[in-house]
Amino acid sequence: MNIQVLTLFPEMFSPLEHSMIGRARQNGIVDISFIDIRDYTKDKHNRTDDYPFGGGQGMVMMADPVFSAFRDIDAGNKKIVYMSPKGRVLDQEKITELSAEEDLVILCGHYEGIDERILEKWDIEEISIGDYILTGGEPAAVVLIDSVVRMLPGVLSSEESALEESIYSGLLEYPQYTHPREYEGMQVPEVLLSGHHRNIYLWRFEKALEITKERRPDLFEAFLKKADGLAKDEKTVLEKFK
Amino acid sequence: MNIQVLTLFPEMFSPLEHSMIGRARQNGIVDISFIDIRDYTKDKHNRTDDYPFGGGQGMVMMADPVFSAFRDIDAGNKKIVYMSPKGRVLDQEKITELSAEEDLVILCGHYEGIDERILEKWDIEEISIGDYILTGGEPAAVVLIDSVVRMLPGVLSSEESALEESIYSGLLEYPQYTHPREYEGMQVPEVLLSGHHRNIYLWRFEKALEITKERRPDLFEAFLKKADGLAKDEKTVLEKFK
Repeated sequence: MNIQVLTLFPEMFSPLEHSMIGRARQNGIVDISFIDIRDYTKDKHNRTDDYPFGGGQGMVMMADPVFSAFRDIDAGNKKIVYMSPKGRVLDQEKITELSAEEDLVILCGHYEGIDERILEKWDIEEISIGDYILTGGEPAAVVLIDSVVRMLPGVLSSEESALEESIYSGLLEYPQYTHPREYEGMQVPEVLLSGHHRNIYLWRFEKALEITKERRPDLFEAFLKKADGLAKDEKTVLEKFK
Repeated sequence: MNIQVLTLFPEMFSPLEHSMIGRARQNGIVDISFIDIRDYTKDKHNRTDDYPFGGGQGMVMMADPVFSAFRDIDAGNKKIVYMSPKGRVLDQEKITELSAEEDLVILCGHYEGIDERILEKWDIEEISIGDYILTGGEPAAVVLIDSVVRMLPGVLSSEESALEESIYSGLLEYPQYTHPREYEGMQVPEVLLSGHHRNIYLWRFEKALEITKERRPDLFEAFLKKADGLAKDEKTVLEKFK
């Protein structure tokens, strides 16, 4: 996959050099490059923004540098995403969809927004990562890229990928415990030490249902709707929550 | 405000050195420090994670290094947040609430999660930035910090802050335009060039209502509920959307 990010702050993307995403780049699974919008200004002062027509606070990103950059990278033939508070709120379904793209162009705005004519002329999907206000599109783009690249074949192990497609998908995660068995008087639940795989599985399933129902009734209802083909003992656990 | 981040990847927070957040730090509005959880291992191999009891993929962050780090920074007397897919989904209301804290401690998990006993023992609020899966808590923490610091007094100009509390709050933003007036055959809407402030205001209000109703009916309904004290001409605009 190729990801091209248009930004005024290429230095804000250094998190993508580390950990799982850093390894995916080193392994050639994804190529991520950064295009500095400032390189496309024709203005002698290298300006990329100007005052909004009609007045108001803040500066608006000008159309021309973005148009020039888009043309230079042939963005018209690629999927373009703009990180925007006005966009569709990101979810895992959209992440899965984007991870199937061969080429992805991500535009990061800054200041008070971008000239609307950029959105009029180009086929751009506006995406928001959530209902909170950021200083710019860059932290949102890092989140989007992290989440998309994580889905690419070869990034997670096959066991990890399989787990995600398991029954737990759509539920919040059950509690995890690691060594030691007792820590400051707190014990690991007995069942996890039992070695009885089916009981462990059912305990985790129950805990996942419990926490999901409590914290995210919306996800719980969605899970109930698509939960079919359950084994008898799974159904017994599920009955407790209906 | 003091923010202390517990992480295995302090280098993933370099975005917070730039732009608006970088300036807020330089100006002493916020102090952000990073605590490497690895510095608190008593293990001779510096391990911070171990296999989950009960089996399963991935590694779980051990309780002890986190307990030691928390005690070292007196986290028990501070607000603690854990970036977690199981958490309450972040919104601007929570951001406003967190920005009022004097001290904020942010724990970033990695791997398959953290030992549940950390959450049992400490008073921790779990926060998710959205319904998508990340490789770890770090990109989420960057988003949280960006959004919280942006709200601190002195980060935005007083005009920008006032605008946020205006009638537009709760609506998606109206379209913005900047120079030139005509670009590749596309014109700036006439009203924005008119100099008639009230008309410009009402046009923007209408556009904000239009885009909010179309894209986010949930926000539109919430706006209708709290919209009172409108002027007559504002009411006339609003009537078109009812």
